[in-house]
Amino acid sequence: MPRHCPTRTSSILLLLTLLLVSTTAWTQAPSLKPESAAAQAALAWTNSHHDQLIREFSDFLAIPDVAATPDGLRRNADYLLAELHHRNVDAQLLTLPGSPDVVFGRIDTPGATHTIVFYAHYDGQPVTPSDWDIPTPFTPTIRAVDGEQRIYARGAGDDKAAIFAQLTALDALRSAQLPLRANIRFVWEGEEEAGSPHLEQILTAHSELVHGDVWLICDGPVDQSGRQTVVFGARGDTHLAITVYGPHHGLHSGHYGNWAPNPAMMLAQLLAGMKDANGHVLIPHFYDGIAPLSPTEKAALARAPVNDGMLMRAFWLGRTENEPRRLLSLLNEPTLNINGLSSGATGAHAANVIPPTATADLDLRLVVGEDWHQQQQRVVDYVRSHGYFVVDQEPTQDILTTHPRVAMIVRDPASYNAVRTPMDLPIAKEVIAAVQSAATARGQGEVVLWPTMGGSVPLGSIVRAAHTHTITVPIANYDDNQHAANENLRLQNLWDGVETMAALLLMQ
Amino acid sequence: MPRHCPTRTSSILLLLTLLLVSTTAWTQAPSLKPESAAAQAALAWTNSHHDQLIREFSDFLAIPDVAATPDGLRRNADYLLAELHHRNVDAQLLTLPGSPDVVFGRIDTPGATHTIVFYAHYDGQPVTPSDWDIPTPFTPTIRAVDGEQRIYARGAGDDKAAIFAQLTALDALRSAQLPLRANIRFVWEGEEEAGSPHLEQILTAHSELVHGDVWLICDGPVDQSGRQTVVFGARGDTHLAITVYGPHHGLHSGHYGNWAPNPAMMLAQLLAGMKDANGHVLIPHFYDGIAPLSPTEKAALARAPVNDGMLMRAFWLGRTENEPRRLLSLLNEPTLNINGLSSGATGAHAANVIPPTATADLDLRLVVGEDWHQQQQRVVDYVRSHGYFVVDQEPTQDILTTHPRVAMIVRDPASYNAVRTPMDLPIAKEVIAAVQSAATARGQGEVVLWPTMGGSVPLGSIVRAAHTHTITVPIANYDDNQHAANENLRLQNLWDGVETMAALLLMQ
Repeated sequence: MPRHCPTRTSSILLLLTLLLVSTTAWTQAPSLKPESAAAQAALAWTNSHHDQLIREFSDFLAIPDVAATPDGLRRNADYLLAELHHRNVDAQLLTLPGSPDVVFGRIDTPGATHTIVFYAHYDGQPVTPSDWDIPTPFTPTIRAVDGEQRIYARGAGDDKAAIFAQLTALDALRSAQLPLRANIRFVWEGEEEAGSPHLEQILTAHSELVHGDVWLICDGPVDQSGRQTVVFGARGDTHLAITVYGPHHGLHSGHYGNWAPNPAMMLAQLLAGMKDANGHVLIPHFYDGIAPLSPTEKAALARAPVNDGMLMRAFWLGRTENEPRRLLSLLNEPTLNINGLSSGATGAHAANVIPPTATADLDLRLVVGEDWHQQQQRVVDYVRSHGYFVVDQEPTQDILTTHPRVAMIVRDPASYNAVRTPMDLPIAKEVIAAVQSAATARGQGEVVLWPTMGGSVPLGSIVRAAHTHTITVPIANYDDNQHAANENLRLQNLWDGVETMAALLLMQ
Repeated sequence: MPRHCPTRTSSILLLLTLLLVSTTAWTQAPSLKPESAAAQAALAWTNSHHDQLIREFSDFLAIPDVAATPDGLRRNADYLLAELHHRNVDAQLLTLPGSPDVVFGRIDTPGATHTIVFYAHYDGQPVTPSDWDIPTPFTPTIRAVDGEQRIYARGAGDDKAAIFAQLTALDALRSAQLPLRANIRFVWEGEEEAGSPHLEQILTAHSELVHGDVWLICDGPVDQSGRQTVVFGARGDTHLAITVYGPHHGLHSGHYGNWAPNPAMMLAQLLAGMKDANGHVLIPHFYDGIAPLSPTEKAALARAPVNDGMLMRAFWLGRTENEPRRLLSLLNEPTLNINGLSSGATGAHAANVIPPTATADLDLRLVVGEDWHQQQQRVVDYVRSHGYFVVDQEPTQDILTTHPRVAMIVRDPASYNAVRTPMDLPIAKEVIAAVQSAATARGQGEVVLWPTMGGSVPLGSIVRAAHTHTITVPIANYDDNQHAANENLRLQNLWDGVETMAALLLMQ
């Protein structure tokens, strides 16, 4: 049943070519490079197994993958272990008490001189089911958007698609009898969305297993233009939760209005000073120490598509922050984002009270040259400079009555710094070539190269524990609503992703 | 069974006196003024019916009284109608489609030249049951606080206590055979906490029934010193809900951080400029037109207790707004209070997103000389002056993409202005004397006189529809958590309230 029927003549010709040569070794078809043969094998496989693949991917997505359901995370790990065993891959769970298991798979290739590690994660961001347009975030549902099919579920784009693409690419290569040339490792973790607090410890305990010449981080979305993308770093990430205090309990806003301090207003005033009206962060030293981009990185940015106008239309935006600078350039700077605000109640539950507290959850992204402890401290110092007595747990009555302003700041310990791999390393060039081969095989243009992605993955812990380089190869569509309600994956991105993974699996 | 055993010798002596004279008409005991006799009759009655009264009050509190349960409001009205009928009071429901019923009671006294109307409301503020320390807000529960008994339930203090005290005072006077001297009316509404949007229409339709020489507004708390209080006005009240817009849907805070505008930050910056750090409102013209206090009102304020220090300790406050000014003085100014803030999610549900919207619910209190339409407009003008395109319903894609900043402001139509009755009217002096007689009878000192309360009741609609003056006589303890979780009434305030209502019922 056709579902991503190639309408591009080149693809049809290559497919026919592949069908002709598929029973012979690739070395006997010198017109096809191994990676191109890999992409074509993937296309043949996904075309001929479309319905089965949709069913299997849906089964995977139906297993709840959020930190709130540890049992669901365990079922995901068991499912993936079984999938590897089913493919005769030497596989095991790397465990640590208190942490979801890391699923590890290993294929040793006779004569191989290189080892390539494929990283992805099977956990998803927390969900608020009532915000979703499907029965539950774990009821995978296919819908057409602008004439293209997408599958909706938590984890669809971030990041189960990558795992599923890797497994499917392996099947496709085997079916086409294309032998692997490097040793392959799979490392699929279940705590990425919580900041991977145990990953480094687990990897360090198994450093002999997880070492590789390169770790391919299969996570995140491709460039918004839809072109295949290779990313050489990720921003670091840390969080702070700031709570400020008004009266001990909610007070009648009439009887005490003008007199009892309102924590919602205090929080608004505290937050307001953190940025200027154009989005530039005003916290002292916030941009200190940033490592500049290399000439190669700057050149890559200059060649990347400019998607800003299209994105503004897609997101219904009438302006962007830090105008006139472009999104891709701004990803190379640290951020301060308010993930959420809460105080009292709004809407139907609103009451005429001066609320006792107000809370903001902040997300700080970091770039190379900055340290997350120091970035947290800069925010704490800023709060102190605004007259707040800062505590790190619920303040006592004595603290509250003896200080005019009190803030509790809870620092997220599961934080990490940014990492950026130079684009001109030999292994980097080889990865670019493999990804380009798959893109070329399906008639897509030049692969987009980003010095860093805006999102975060715990690359630093991987680099330290596995003594390796990391390069990110995302496959999801940019508009996959990852981290939000109605997360989805454009199915064409899954099929293209299988081709890309097949090309990477076949690297030498 | 003793429960509020009078330890004050004066009370005991007066009680003995009352028991001696209780079988004779008050005119035959010239040493007791009628209002004092009323208070003593109330004390005798509540002492001898303590357990029964607690049971009956609990039954009343157990009937859900929030706007979210219209059936509960209807049951409250039916219950009160039956209570009036049970006492042979001519009673009826004043109805209007779409509005909770007003319960109306009427006692015509032969030879009376004055009519006194007792107003209270049987509805309560919205509830969030999970915030309460009792099984539900409608499971009345008695607990000891600092050695004194309190009853916990939504409506316990605001405002079912007043209704229950009026009914009980009527029983006490009849039991003591103390005849009424004025015509009495009861008007108990069920929509006060929603801003009484239909009250004026209902009263106007029945203006011949509801006219009186004075309306006694039995609502709100007494002075924080615990002394009985008479209040000559109430602040007006209006609301605005402000929503500002970021991206059309939640975006990944890593991939779009620094670029997609964050509505939580936009809202913080908008709100922050509405007040200075000391709580003074900076919105242009916010304080324009305020009617100054009269010399009598200023003198009353100067005689009132200073409770600020005690309240700061009770509420765990390390400072107050608008220092060094006092609470009682600040109640005579308009307020701008944030009832609630929401954007994205905080805590366990927080996700790394740039949220699509951020909302603040504002409560504005007004004083005499200001108009609520104008006060709303001042806030809207302020928002516009900060570069926002303001709409009053969900903005379209076209509006959002063609304006850099968009705010939806929903104005509450159920709003009303402040009212202040002069303290030196003859009827005002008579009310003060009656309340003072009850306070004196139980050995309490001088009654506290406030030009206005901080809270709001729809006095203006009453004044217009019933062609009357309003004077407020509250009975609840100040720390009754009204409008918040764990609303409660100190039982001693209920018994004292019965005495006060008895003295007022016996006015000439």
